[in-house]
Amino acid sequence: MDRLAELEPLFFPKTIAVFGASRDETKFGSRYLRALLDFGFQGAIYPVHPSEDELLGLKAYPDLGAIPAPVDMASIMVPAPQVPGVLEQCRANGVRAAQILTSGFAETGDEGGRALEAQLRSLAGGDLRFVGPNCFGVYCPAGGLTLLPGGNFPKDPGPVAFLSQSGGHAVELAREARGRGIRFSKVVSYGNAVDLNEADLLEYVAADPETELVAMYLEGPREGIRFFRLLRELTPKKPVIIWKAGLTQAGAHAVRSHTASLAGEEALWTAALAQAGAVRVTSLEELADTVLAFRMLPPLTGTRVGVVGGGGGISVAAADACGRVGLEIPPFEEGVRAQLRSTVAAVGTSIRNPVDIGVPIVPPEPFERVMSIVAGAPNVDIVIATQALYHILSGRLAPPPEEREPFLKGLLAVPPAVRDRSGKPVVIVLPLGGDEPDMIEAERARRLIRDSYLGVGIPSYPTLERAARAVAHVAHYYAWLRTLD
Amino acid sequence: MDRLAELEPLFFPKTIAVFGASRDETKFGSRYLRALLDFGFQGAIYPVHPSEDELLGLKAYPDLGAIPAPVDMASIMVPAPQVPGVLEQCRANGVRAAQILTSGFAETGDEGGRALEAQLRSLAGGDLRFVGPNCFGVYCPAGGLTLLPGGNFPKDPGPVAFLSQSGGHAVELAREARGRGIRFSKVVSYGNAVDLNEADLLEYVAADPETELVAMYLEGPREGIRFFRLLRELTPKKPVIIWKAGLTQAGAHAVRSHTASLAGEEALWTAALAQAGAVRVTSLEELADTVLAFRMLPPLTGTRVGVVGGGGGISVAAADACGRVGLEIPPFEEGVRAQLRSTVAAVGTSIRNPVDIGVPIVPPEPFERVMSIVAGAPNVDIVIATQALYHILSGRLAPPPEEREPFLKGLLAVPPAVRDRSGKPVVIVLPLGGDEPDMIEAERARRLIRDSYLGVGIPSYPTLERAARAVAHVAHYYAWLRTLD
Repeated sequence: MDRLAELEPLFFPKTIAVFGASRDETKFGSRYLRALLDFGFQGAIYPVHPSEDELLGLKAYPDLGAIPAPVDMASIMVPAPQVPGVLEQCRANGVRAAQILTSGFAETGDEGGRALEAQLRSLAGGDLRFVGPNCFGVYCPAGGLTLLPGGNFPKDPGPVAFLSQSGGHAVELAREARGRGIRFSKVVSYGNAVDLNEADLLEYVAADPETELVAMYLEGPREGIRFFRLLRELTPKKPVIIWKAGLTQAGAHAVRSHTASLAGEEALWTAALAQAGAVRVTSLEELADTVLAFRMLPPLTGTRVGVVGGGGGISVAAADACGRVGLEIPPFEEGVRAQLRSTVAAVGTSIRNPVDIGVPIVPPEPFERVMSIVAGAPNVDIVIATQALYHILSGRLAPPPEEREPFLKGLLAVPPAVRDRSGKPVVIVLPLGGDEPDMIEAERARRLIRDSYLGVGIPSYPTLERAARAVAHVAHYYAWLRTLD
Repeated sequence: MDRLAELEPLFFPKTIAVFGASRDETKFGSRYLRALLDFGFQGAIYPVHPSEDELLGLKAYPDLGAIPAPVDMASIMVPAPQVPGVLEQCRANGVRAAQILTSGFAETGDEGGRALEAQLRSLAGGDLRFVGPNCFGVYCPAGGLTLLPGGNFPKDPGPVAFLSQSGGHAVELAREARGRGIRFSKVVSYGNAVDLNEADLLEYVAADPETELVAMYLEGPREGIRFFRLLRELTPKKPVIIWKAGLTQAGAHAVRSHTASLAGEEALWTAALAQAGAVRVTSLEELADTVLAFRMLPPLTGTRVGVVGGGGGISVAAADACGRVGLEIPPFEEGVRAQLRSTVAAVGTSIRNPVDIGVPIVPPEPFERVMSIVAGAPNVDIVIATQALYHILSGRLAPPPEEREPFLKGLLAVPPAVRDRSGKPVVIVLPLGGDEPDMIEAERARRLIRDSYLGVGIPSYPTLERAARAVAHVAHYYAWLRTLD
């Protein structure tokens, strides 16, 4: 059976049975049920409980057999020793999908946990497919499903899939992404991967028409060879961003206690991921930053960056930050320099690349001129500009209050206008102006400005280092793609 | 003459002449004068102006000769072509120190700028020593001096010196540091280093009794051999943290346009800095983070970290983040594991190192028990714990409102108590809970909590990666120091 049809009940169930909710609302099962209700699941939910008649306002049933309709998916949060029994019950009643959130299996490292996991393994496969145990399950906005603590996650779907061996990271990325306007097709926390593993799920998102971009957090794969074969097939069609954890000695040790897998080795992974055309990241922040860049940037045609900022030291640091991640900062040709020379003040500035406009903020008009000249340079593929707006937002270096709003509006209009006219992508760095409590209002304004940039498709980052790193990933992916032709 | 006596008038002038202030308050000279007044310089300030009688409420003088008292230091912000003349006037009138903030010299790369810089060079040395040109000058709280845009910088001095070839970075670090409770002995932005250069200033801060820790931002040194000799002498006595920019090809190109020096080469610098015992960083953020760690941590006796956090994926990532910067995460011995086993829930947790307490936040009492056990482990030198307080601050995972304050207070009391009882340093990670505008109140609270930790000498960082990186720098410095014995 093809994966899409096979896993349809896992992502788009019409009916869900919930095992493990109770009157105690602090229990995982109850919190999951609450999240599902808050999120607004549209189908029927059937809590299963041996003695309760009603839970969170829903009629409860003593077992699957008592439920009056066919159940598509089971969410299982009962204590570990009861999980195999529930799973058998599901199988006997024709349930085709389950997510087992319960922990206490092989990841504990003890005899009992391993034995329970072996029992689950003997129940895996066939008509009933499941994720887990030891996970947070599935978030699929189009299917009305959410993760354990995700009652308030965005309900609108998007093109990004995230497959995560860790439930914590699945939740963290969904949260990080929320503030960046990134929306998901499917987020799957698959934990110990006793049945559905990284390869199965990769196969699913490869076929999934809703998914255009795949992100993964991997500890140890269960089917490494099959995984890499699928990965090689997928990367030319959809970018795959992979955070492989456990590649340091310390990390490898922790992986073994976490999802009971053996970590691969650094050198092997580096070579294999590069060969497979995957984009490799090493932290959640980098993962989220890179997803944002892939979502908002067009297929980049090169790695040559035009950098614009104010304050000389910043420019050297900017060049270093770009150089360190493999971006080029090409010198401008004389024609471009001449244009810049007639625009930028002669003193305390630089008309080389990076362009140093001399002060942290210039008014909209000269900013637009500089940006247009740099975007127009024939040897520039993309522009990264720093706007140290906190000087305005904090009132430290601001026009008089009555001029502030048009001044800001003017500055914010420049990046999209320059991008649209030049056809070159623009990325904006919006630095924090210090993280003292008394800068909080400036920080609130900064976040709103960041959001307004995201709203017009301009990726924005708080530091040049992060912007350069994300841009480099996108540029290198498309450069790799061109080598395949 | 020894450096301390020689540079006394630069850092502790009793009288300052200001060249370049005018009625136009947007000019650099006027803004500098305003900053000096706002900062509260205690000595006499004499603006020098050819035609004005008064500037910003101060009596102005047509030239140095007209000033009724001896002038210790001159701040020079007149246009570049006038600077040599002003400098000659200073020399003729017995002024012993100057800071030349004006740009437009060799850093422009053009003939005229280079010629002007050559003129300045011919006036360098002798009884008049100066920093600059193309800089932001000196910030010395004990002397009542501040940088160009530093009218609101902290007035209380501290033990950190920062020598920066870039004025922008000097201001940025002072600002970053402000929010971290770091205070400075001297910050010197020395720009083109025509007279006083990195070696002279290093010699000064080496002798300076007020300075215990030195940070530097270097593009290209003027006296490399002398600089490294001084550096080797200093590092066993005072840690020296160096951010060397311009070591990528892109950066080297930018350095040449910035302060007109040739950048060194990556491999040479790496070897030379390591051999000299300097702590090497590659960004402003890392510099500020590392200064904080050096200020708050005792001389670390090893690199073995006990890591505490909640959520399994976080722990693997934590171990990786530590491993990547050369910290060890040693497995606990059975006695410690037994203690943890009796404290931490059996399921969804890990009692290996990193310790995964299973949920992002536990109440103060179990948190204290876990922290005490980990700090008490004989093979742990330092504890890094993550407190995902945003779950409480945002109300997402919080005790009822009336219990919230004692709950938080209890949690915040644990790290200093554990540190004091165990004698092991503790570092706290306070993650941001997302950067949406609607999380701004949680972020404000987070910053206040961070400040309260800093107030009791507990360094705090927003990510585990940053905490580990800073801790590793301190641990490696003291490990290097022990090899000298």
